[in-house]
Amino acid sequence: MSALVLEPIGVARTPFKTREECPPCGWDAGTVSTIQLKVEYQDGLLGVTPQMRICVLWHCHLARRDVLQQPSGERHSQLGVFAMRSPERPNPIGFSFAEVLAVEGANVHVRGLECVDGTPVLDIKCVILRPDGLSL
Amino acid sequence: MSALVLEPIGVARTPFKTREECPPCGWDAGTVSTIQLKVEYQDGLLGVTPQMRICVLWHCHLARRDVLQQPSGERHSQLGVFAMRSPERPNPIGFSFAEVLAVEGANVHVRGLECVDGTPVLDIKCVILRPDGLSL
Repeated sequence: MSALVLEPIGVARTPFKTREECPPCGWDAGTVSTIQLKVEYQDGLLGVTPQMRICVLWHCHLARRDVLQQPSGERHSQLGVFAMRSPERPNPIGFSFAEVLAVEGANVHVRGLECVDGTPVLDIKCVILRPDGLSL
Repeated sequence: MSALVLEPIGVARTPFKTREECPPCGWDAGTVSTIQLKVEYQDGLLGVTPQMRICVLWHCHLARRDVLQQPSGERHSQLGVFAMRSPERPNPIGFSFAEVLAVEGANVHVRGLECVDGTPVLDIKCVILRPDGLSL
């Protein structure tokens, strides 16, 4: 299996200047942020409209990649990173759901991101809301 | 912003030999698959247990990366890839939720994947189920 090289499609502008400032869940915090897409990807936003729920994938660029287990605050024990949502993991990709507030050119204003200001954004997908509580 | 190089942590063994065979949602199809992790990542599975719901990220290795808009069957119009879940996108990362059936060494048997057999797996995360229907 060969390596996968990803080029960021843009950058997240959030109010969080450090990892410590980031809330556990941006959705609950209700924070307003902006995804600044590179202009060459703007055509991919056709159909991204206000009130749409999107899933944003980003590169946890400040995270360590050599960690496989970490202390778990909740369970008072060591846990594997694949049983957690820690940014520390071999392929440090984070994602969260957000609500689109407005689209202005290549800028997408959203509510719900929890990543550090300046985080490279890798992808945006629409969210499929399901009646069984398992949004995809 | 620099490029991000990802090394697959393993491979998905599913019953779907071609893209055309893949269901839209593996969760609904109930298909049983196996994530074969590379042995060097096995320690990251500590705490991954049966009945746990996980989110699996993979490399859509058969997808095109130069597509920004596509016809949308649902809306009978052209849509940007960031408003869709199509595998075709600049950074072709797919994800779906799955249920852990069993963990045997570096193999994780799951129900719910919809990717092609042989798909490189990039990450596994626990799913946070929320009462408001927006699982994360």
